[in-house]
Amino acid sequence: MSTHTLAELAAEVGGTVIGDASTVIRGVAGIREAQAGEITFIANSRYDSHLAETLASAVICSREPRSSPVPLLQVDNPYLAFQKVVRLFRPELYRPLAGVHATAVVSPAATIGEGASVGAHCVVEAGARIGARTVLMPGCYVGVQAAIGEDCLFYPNVSLREECVVGSRCILHSGAVIGADGFGFAFDAGRYHKVPQVGIVQIGDDVEVGANTTIDRATTDATRIGDGTKIDNLVQIGHNVQIGRHCIIVSQVGISGSTRLEDFVVIGGQAGLAGHITVGSGANIGGQAGVSKSVPAKAVVWGTPAQPLPAGQTINAYLQRLPQLFQRTKSLEARVEQLEQEQAAHAPPARKEAIR
Amino acid sequence: MSTHTLAELAAEVGGTVIGDASTVIRGVAGIREAQAGEITFIANSRYDSHLAETLASAVICSREPRSSPVPLLQVDNPYLAFQKVVRLFRPELYRPLAGVHATAVVSPAATIGEGASVGAHCVVEAGARIGARTVLMPGCYVGVQAAIGEDCLFYPNVSLREECVVGSRCILHSGAVIGADGFGFAFDAGRYHKVPQVGIVQIGDDVEVGANTTIDRATTDATRIGDGTKIDNLVQIGHNVQIGRHCIIVSQVGISGSTRLEDFVVIGGQAGLAGHITVGSGANIGGQAGVSKSVPAKAVVWGTPAQPLPAGQTINAYLQRLPQLFQRTKSLEARVEQLEQEQAAHAPPARKEAIR
Amino acid sequence: MSTHTLAELAAEVGGTVIGDASTVIRGVAGIREAQAGEITFIANSRYDSHLAETLASAVICSREPRSSPVPLLQVDNPYLAFQKVVRLFRPELYRPLAGVHATAVVSPAATIGEGASVGAHCVVEAGARIGARTVLMPGCYVGVQAAIGEDCLFYPNVSLREECVVGSRCILHSGAVIGADGFGFAFDAGRYHKVPQVGIVQIGDDVEVGANTTIDRATTDATRIGDGTKIDNLVQIGHNVQIGRHCIIVSQVGISGSTRLEDFVVIGGQAGLAGHITVGSGANIGGQAGVSKSVPAKAVVWGTPAQPLPAGQTINAYLQRLPQLFQRTKSLEARVEQLEQEQAAHAPPARKEAIR
Repeated sequence: MSTHTLAELAAEVGGTVIGDASTVIRGVAGIREAQAGEITFIANSRYDSHLAETLASAVICSREPRSSPVPLLQVDNPYLAFQKVVRLFRPELYRPLAGVHATAVVSPAATIGEGASVGAHCVVEAGARIGARTVLMPGCYVGVQAAIGEDCLFYPNVSLREECVVGSRCILHSGAVIGADGFGFAFDAGRYHKVPQVGIVQIGDDVEVGANTTIDRATTDATRIGDGTKIDNLVQIGHNVQIGRHCIIVSQVGISGSTRLEDFVVIGGQAGLAGHITVGSGANIGGQAGVSKSVPAKAVVWGTPAQPLPAGQTINAYLQRLPQLFQRTKSLEARVEQLEQEQAAHAPPARKEAIR
Repeated sequence: MSTHTLAELAAEVGGTVIGDASTVIRGVAGIREAQAGEITFIANSRYDSHLAETLASAVICSREPRSSPVPLLQVDNPYLAFQKVVRLFRPELYRPLAGVHATAVVSPAATIGEGASVGAHCVVEAGARIGARTVLMPGCYVGVQAAIGEDCLFYPNVSLREECVVGSRCILHSGAVIGADGFGFAFDAGRYHKVPQVGIVQIGDDVEVGANTTIDRATTDATRIGDGTKIDNLVQIGHNVQIGRHCIIVSQVGISGSTRLEDFVVIGGQAGLAGHITVGSGANIGGQAGVSKSVPAKAVVWGTPAQPLPAGQTINAYLQRLPQLFQRTKSLEARVEQLEQEQAAHAPPARKEAIR
Repeated sequence: MSTHTLAELAAEVGGTVIGDASTVIRGVAGIREAQAGEITFIANSRYDSHLAETLASAVICSREPRSSPVPLLQVDNPYLAFQKVVRLFRPELYRPLAGVHATAVVSPAATIGEGASVGAHCVVEAGARIGARTVLMPGCYVGVQAAIGEDCLFYPNVSLREECVVGSRCILHSGAVIGADGFGFAFDAGRYHKVPQVGIVQIGDDVEVGANTTIDRATTDATRIGDGTKIDNLVQIGHNVQIGRHCIIVSQVGISGSTRLEDFVVIGGQAGLAGHITVGSGANIGGQAGVSKSVPAKAVVWGTPAQPLPAGQTINAYLQRLPQLFQRTKSLEARVEQLEQEQAAHAPPARKEAIR
């Protein structure tokens, strides 16, 4: 097991040591579990209180001033620095051996790249291409003429349907299904007729797809996921959806058919997007939002139907005071009735005469 | 590759050609991707603007008048006509060979129909019956005494648990789980006790089940899915749910135990239905709706709690104006206070004397 | 097939017979499907009307007085009693044989407990330990150094990633993914960098995990599920979540990273919980709720944002009357304007003169 001094780690991540830079670090752990000799991190200031109790020998944190009984490694981006430090101490442990497992079923008409690993019980169909150093863990299925780039990692039991394309350095988690038929039916004569889905899914480079997430193939052409986009677990992406680069899509989001996301869009968990809309670059959609209209670039929207954040939050704040508003209205009605009665009773004589 | 003239296609789908009926068509594609020689379609008038730019040689569209630089094939149902045309040009490409793959594990007490295909690494347990011409792609599991009808297609990694029944011409997508235990526990003495789920799932004919969708087995008797019903990805259907014929259930919907859907019900994405309720024939439930009470036949409901569409939409429209309502109420309060003060100051003499 | 008299069943479940205690029972069924010789149950008084029509020879029900043409077996907890009776008549039918199937791939460095069953096409990696009598049905994957306790049941196609730990007597349904990477990325220089997820998932004893549910491994340390907790299908549990004992988590719930549930928490279907919050012991969260703040022990919360039940329900009730409130406000405005005009017109002479 390698060790590093805090000074060495600071050099590695571009940070500043507050405290004893010669402290020797042997590993990484969470702030509550860390033991002497380990380094941990605080990505969120709400955990600052743990500084007083941690047994860690050093803590990675932001550059804001804070007092600490343990040495600090201050950096611009604690989460990023932690990521680099973890990689130092925990190089990937379980990389499967290159080669095709004896129980895998690989078509002679498939192409397996140099150094690739095809695990037990995988199936690779005719015309499929697996790039160099890509790993398919056990039980993965790669359909006819599907293509996977280099240095990808498919965890156990991923299904990649025929003709779909995955770029390089992608990670697909267990149970992900890429290229199932889009949900398209034409109603005629009292029943639904399946519309063949003859398009594909095309995933760029450096994409991550979460466990049991489903990305449907296009009716025609392609459902596309841009480079660097990260998709969490149990997400549904409909046919012909177009997702840009470096988007973040949190778990259980649903994106309906033909909707388009530009780059750097962030979508919170369980949000739902209608079909045939566009979400502009850098927009941020809140968790559980219901998005039925297009969202402008950089907008922050929230709620159902989703609205720009100040409006959505304002409405929600007013909503919480709705019972009081009913009380105020009821009180106003009583006061106005009182005013009306008094005015009727005491109207000036001229008017009373006129009424007579 | 086969070719057809536009006139031939019009005869095939019952349409009318506007333009050169002798145009030769070699394939199908989406309106943005189509090249010369291909036919495409417009199912939604919002894409009419693409007519001016498409490279396609013809476009299938509705019978509404529209101007177009390319020949049109006007039909009653563009999506249906496109479906028929796709099938002409793209007969199923990848139908697996009939027979049992050498790596499949099939019980000698199972029955495999004529022309059926059992793919690599499938497992078919004792007493299971696979109908004629049904295809199990690799990695599917068929439990003890489960039964599948004729001409079904199971994509890779479907799990069909013991005793469950699937009709004919059904399509089950990858990762679908049919017949997992219903979620039933009895609380006693400080802990939950599992209630055995000894019923089954019974799926009719011509049903489609999406990727990673789960349909739970009944506590007793059966969870039922009627003929022609189409279920999208990541849908949850609880124990003892009864779904009628020709329903459409969009992705990520959840239907709680013992709820009953009559025929031709449509449920939008991410909607949730409480248990033990009934949704009447032809009802339409909006996306993300929360349905806690039974829904009458043909009703269109929306929101949480779900309400008939005009009411639900009206309330939502008013909700957007809630901040202004607070302002109006505040203004009214000031005006009424002013009126009250003036009335007190200027009450008629008689009254003032009486007060003295 | 065994038979029991109603008197014997009453003794078994601690119940009271109303009617002929010598009635012979041969099996169990639902109230609508039961035939002569079978016993059924009513867990919910809304099904009392079926008593008049059932063909069952006896009905398990609560101790509340009710009239019935068939003998009743009255108990404190009908669902629990039914569970016990089902187990009498339907001992587990399909328990696979002990031993490792010829097609399973088990590392020589794995440990398989006495009487355990490793099904067809399972993979058990190096260092993994499978406890005594645990059953892995076909297609399960158990990663490097993962550990499973005794008497567990993994249905087909479960994925348990490396180093994760499952206690004893757990049931994992098909498609469950335990230990996929938590969703953690650090943004830097225009793109997201994966933060290695080097923690594990640790599941206690007597836990049930539903079909296609995903439980992510921790960034460091462990995502934990306490003893006796029951999780339904398609649930997402994020990295570093801590769930206590005997919780109930209904289908399609999403729990964000680092959130903590104490014991006996109940969460309704499709609810979403933000990260880094705490839900107190015995709290009850309604279906589709959006929980963005910590919830006190025993609280019952509802809606988005989730609020204590009376408040949340009250607001919702007022919301339904919002259109009327707008009408009332509009009417008030007209009346106040009328009052103001009259007051201006008929102000006492002194004032009028002053104005002149």
